Amino acid sequence: MLDFSKSAKGLLPAIVQDYKTRRVLMLAYINELAWKKTLETGKAHYWSRSRNKLWLKGESSGHVQIIHDIFVDCDADTVLFLVEQRGGAACHVGYASCFYRRVAGDDILIEEEKVFDPKQVYK
Amino acid sequence: MLDFSKSAKGLLPAIVQDYKTRRVLMLAYINELAWKKTLETGKAHYWSRSRNKLWLKGESSGHVQIIHDIFVDCDADTVLFLVEQRGGAACHVGYASCFYRRVAGDDILIEEEKVFDPKQVYK
Repeated sequence: MLDFSKSAKGLLPAIVQDYKTRRVLMLAYINELAWKKTLETGKAHYWSRSRNKLWLKGESSGHVQIIHDIFVDCDADTVLFLVEQRGGAACHVGYASCFYRRVAGDDILIEEEKVFDPKQVYK
Repeated sequence: MLDFSKSAKGLLPAIVQDYKTRRVLMLAYINELAWKKTLETGKAHYWSRSRNKLWLKGESSGHVQIIHDIFVDCDADTVLFLVEQRGGAACHVGYASCFYRRVAGDDILIEEEKVFDPKQVYK
């Protein structure tokens, strides 16, 4: 269903979108194992490139992502997860979405408040 | 503003979303040149991995993407383009979105019609 050979390291990008608001929450990477675990459990799993290990999103914060729908793109090398984001925030910095910074000319603006304090959540 | 050093080839993923409906249309890759051209022109430019060249989206089809907003993620290694998709279709196969296939168990379903016939558009 997916063509993991498209990437040298067998990692494909997964776009994560809120299933209700359709806000894009984050982008992460999956390998075959993360893909299989996501399908099996109905919770989004990724491959952490920094830690080089399987990553159940929310394993530390409790902010898991419940899968509502999955779409595959025309080239079978990108997936789109429509999720329910538990805890209301996908970003480890504390914002609802990782895309909390808007480009405005040469500036970058933050126009929203954090949902949680990372110091309280990642202990 | 972006950290192109995050990727070996200097390519970062760009998620493309319809600015009105918030439907995710596609994912493509940008390098520094494509990023600069996008900011300068207000039209989405990418780096084609298959052709290894700068790619003005819509250069063949006329289906350009007019930039409405740009967001940068927490790690500065992914961007989100909110665009007006001219021609009503982002996918070279003819669908409105590249994500026209939904995963349903072991099956993959297509639940929408093509907006255009690729044979007529790419001559």
